[in-house]
Amino acid sequence: MTTTRPCLSRLLTQLGAAALLSFLGASAAQAAHAQAAKPVGKTPMKRMAGAEVLKATTAEDWREPSLEHTLYMDTAAGRVVIELAPAFAPLHVQNILDLVEDGYFKSSAVLRVHENYVVQWGAPEDEDAKQVKGLKKAKAEIADGELFIKPHAGTRITPLPDGDAFAPVAGMAGGFPAAADPKVGQTWLTHCYSMVGIGRGEAANSGNGSSMYVVIGQAPRNLDRNVAVVGRVLQGMEWLTSLPRGTGDLGFYTDAKQQQPIQIRRAIDVPEAERVALQVLRTERPAYLNWLQAKRFPASSWYLQDPGRVELCSALPPVRKKPS
Amino acid sequence: MTTTRPCLSRLLTQLGAAALLSFLGASAAQAAHAQAAKPVGKTPMKRMAGAEVLKATTAEDWREPSLEHTLYMDTAAGRVVIELAPAFAPLHVQNILDLVEDGYFKSSAVLRVHENYVVQWGAPEDEDAKQVKGLKKAKAEIADGELFIKPHAGTRITPLPDGDAFAPVAGMAGGFPAAADPKVGQTWLTHCYSMVGIGRGEAANSGNGSSMYVVIGQAPRNLDRNVAVVGRVLQGMEWLTSLPRGTGDLGFYTDAKQQQPIQIRRAIDVPEAERVALQVLRTERPAYLNWLQAKRFPASSWYLQDPGRVELCSALPPVRKKPS
Repeated sequence: MTTTRPCLSRLLTQLGAAALLSFLGASAAQAAHAQAAKPVGKTPMKRMAGAEVLKATTAEDWREPSLEHTLYMDTAAGRVVIELAPAFAPLHVQNILDLVEDGYFKSSAVLRVHENYVVQWGAPEDEDAKQVKGLKKAKAEIADGELFIKPHAGTRITPLPDGDAFAPVAGMAGGFPAAADPKVGQTWLTHCYSMVGIGRGEAANSGNGSSMYVVIGQAPRNLDRNVAVVGRVLQGMEWLTSLPRGTGDLGFYTDAKQQQPIQIRRAIDVPEAERVALQVLRTERPAYLNWLQAKRFPASSWYLQDPGRVELCSALPPVRKKPS
Repeated sequence: MTTTRPCLSRLLTQLGAAALLSFLGASAAQAAHAQAAKPVGKTPMKRMAGAEVLKATTAEDWREPSLEHTLYMDTAAGRVVIELAPAFAPLHVQNILDLVEDGYFKSSAVLRVHENYVVQWGAPEDEDAKQVKGLKKAKAEIADGELFIKPHAGTRITPLPDGDAFAPVAGMAGGFPAAADPKVGQTWLTHCYSMVGIGRGEAANSGNGSSMYVVIGQAPRNLDRNVAVVGRVLQGMEWLTSLPRGTGDLGFYTDAKQQQPIQIRRAIDVPEAERVALQVLRTERPAYLNWLQAKRFPASSWYLQDPGRVELCSALPPVRKKPS
């Protein structure tokens, strides 16, 4: 074995039928079936480190998030870049964009830092449908932000080969972690570290985009299908995770002085020179599967034991600066 | 249904045969079998919130970690309390205690804060077998800290009912998250948020306790069985997770001035008045299973959808201050 880049057919064999089905555009239902029948723990013939896999990628293996659906959340410490997922949360994403356009997030704040759970900004949780004092009244106040769960049919998921404790199908869809239950005909984005959701009150449609949060701890998958997940932080998680934890109930800051000022803009509204050009590895490409294999069967001799497995929330696709 | 405390027999039925086997002291192998045959997603007849479950506990439902195996890691911001797990990592725990006794951690430091991964203190990773400059030479430098994996037979695991992506059996053992593979006859502590491990170099036995880390992100279960897990942070995670991320390779601080001073002592060596009296919910008691059920089938009407499931790293037993 002297080739340094594993060939596609071998990798597909290694990853099993589930991956192959995904490549062929199979429905998630078929994929779920294949997943159940998967051979797991098969050792690849040629191992590559994750960094090597990424180095071997071509320009076609990467996508650039749309500037219209990318948010820059600027904090005192640094910039947080969020990719929105309009395909999965169209109503909420529209609400967020309307709020941003209205200037709602021009001088907003992080209000809550809940250890091993979420960082939350915008409106306080219990005032989802109202406005934070002093902020501009926004369109979304009267918007009907239903909790949107994508109908199952036709949703492309690149299923992970090792199963999931929460759903019969789990994998990547359009670059985001997603799960599906063919029996109930639903596909949804999942609560993984760095995923962004919409705070809501008691009513299912009380989340309007004025309150957002990001997961900063062990994936709270119990929230899946209970709150709309609208996107992913691609860069800058460290500016949120290192904030002091709030000492009030649910990690809210008890003193307004503790609240961390933020400003949110769409990337498209920021002068080109000030933008952050990022690329995300395409999850439907063989390079992503190679990268998963590098996690399952590490190349480094440091490992005494192959993990042989990978979990949904540890499989979010790599992000890089666009090469100049 | 007017009773407020669910009766044991009903709960056991709800949780399925796996839990029952655990109560009866079945081996993990048997439990694994039961787990495979489990009925999942059954709705309990009576729902309780997690807080209600804890309120209904008795003194017997809680255990107090031994003072000999509890470490206080004091930082500038606050105290971190670590419960060691000698039953799972006897050699490493002994090394750590020897180092503490020798004064090795009297004036130590956090050296690495790696976003969505680990906080590490003590010796730099690549100097496991050496000493940090200026610190006292410690016994463990010459100790043979083998990576200890507990033989499977006889290990009591309270298995979780919803499976695990990484191991055929996963659940709680002696209050710590653990997984087992009856086929290879091993049981090991798992890398969950707040679990503490021992840094090591290339050789399996190069970890000697002078370098420790705690998981601060999505559970890096790929490290399981590759590094010794030695305990759990019971309190004070927020003092570590909110530290600035290191900007060097692997999140190491590049400037010694960034290193956060710490001091580690055994609880037993601290005057009684300065101790933190904590209790951990016993994972082999029905109260723990009730608490799991509260996660799987929340009592709150806020939930639109029962999660119906719970994952190993979201199931670490609750910790409380000892009631006075």
